[in-house]
Amino acid sequence: MKLYDAPVAPNPRRVRWVMAEKGITDIEVVQVSIPDSEHKSADYLAKAGLPQLPMLEMDDGAAVTESLAICRYLESRYPEPNLFGRTPEETAVIEMWTRRAEMLVATPFMLGVRLAHPAFAPLETPAPEVAEWNQKTAMNALKVLDRRLGESAFLATERITIADIVAVIGIDFARIVRLRPPEELAHLNRWLAAMRERPAAGV
Amino acid sequence: MKLYDAPVAPNPRRVRWVMAEKGITDIEVVQVSIPDSEHKSADYLAKAGLPQLPMLEMDDGAAVTESLAICRYLESRYPEPNLFGRTPEETAVIEMWTRRAEMLVATPFMLGVRLAHPAFAPLETPAPEVAEWNQKTAMNALKVLDRRLGESAFLATERITIADIVAVIGIDFARIVRLRPPEELAHLNRWLAAMRERPAAGV
Repeated sequence: MKLYDAPVAPNPRRVRWVMAEKGITDIEVVQVSIPDSEHKSADYLAKAGLPQLPMLEMDDGAAVTESLAICRYLESRYPEPNLFGRTPEETAVIEMWTRRAEMLVATPFMLGVRLAHPAFAPLETPAPEVAEWNQKTAMNALKVLDRRLGESAFLATERITIADIVAVIGIDFARIVRLRPPEELAHLNRWLAAMRERPAAGV
Repeated sequence: MKLYDAPVAPNPRRVRWVMAEKGITDIEVVQVSIPDSEHKSADYLAKAGLPQLPMLEMDDGAAVTESLAICRYLESRYPEPNLFGRTPEETAVIEMWTRRAEMLVATPFMLGVRLAHPAFAPLETPAPEVAEWNQKTAMNALKVLDRRLGESAFLATERITIADIVAVIGIDFARIVRLRPPEELAHLNRWLAAMRERPAAGV
């Protein structure tokens, strides 16, 4: 297997975090420079189809982009610790919270950064109103996570799962535009501090 | 199992379409009226956590919202025909195309309708610039699907999968704001006509 990786961007960080939680060290990692447009080279596009990172070349030689598809595939090869669920019922609850974390918080924060911050202007046409709507949407949705974390140690279950990893990486990325969870969201901030103390948070 | 369902909305339709493809007829279906705010009642929220539809009460009694979590769970109970993948590699490719269909096309079309159309004003504060950005983003991303459908009968594999269902329901929903794939996207229109002819399309 070979992983194509890039720094700063939130989606490649999901894969690195999952690899760190699982102690995966035997996959070759290739750095791809987004500022140098290496993800738009003919060679890269021939494999990935779209200028997206991360990308994983799987055991059968096929390449797959999309961070969560890659993470779920890694779990099939490195099952422990389990991050996606051990039974169909648990898998469904984890997928529900992963989707809520992504669609309510991580994706709007990502758009709220990429469409607003001047550093991204070479990659994406700025759209200030759209960025602002997304930032507000994500900040507002943090209350949903806080409420959940008042009744559960982690978002989906009593142990860390892919849902927590998606959520914290989305929240971390928003620091680029100086957005942070308000202090009154005490459950969220307790969980966030615990997530950031994990060794995997350093990836 | 008990499914909480609603008409018109695209996410409940994903579950109905999957049930139709699999011939599932033995799950009790309860209609929830969004115009009457039944999805915001105390009883409903106690189960769902958020005012979201669809919701499935699973075999173990737990309730799960999020259409794709529900559909994957249904596949664990009704495996045939397979819609999510038979091997880890195939599952990864299907999840990649499902995410592309959702994030590039279905979600922006959904926001492009809900934030623009007067019928949704009671549910969502209109935001015309954000709606327009989302509509343009989705219309532009149809080219990605068209290119893929020039090399494959269906989006992820040579057979129908959940990726196709997510894509066609997103495209169908955009008809509310009179957006349709341009005629020059011949591969996409060939596939769209085939998808709309399936018995499951009537759900």
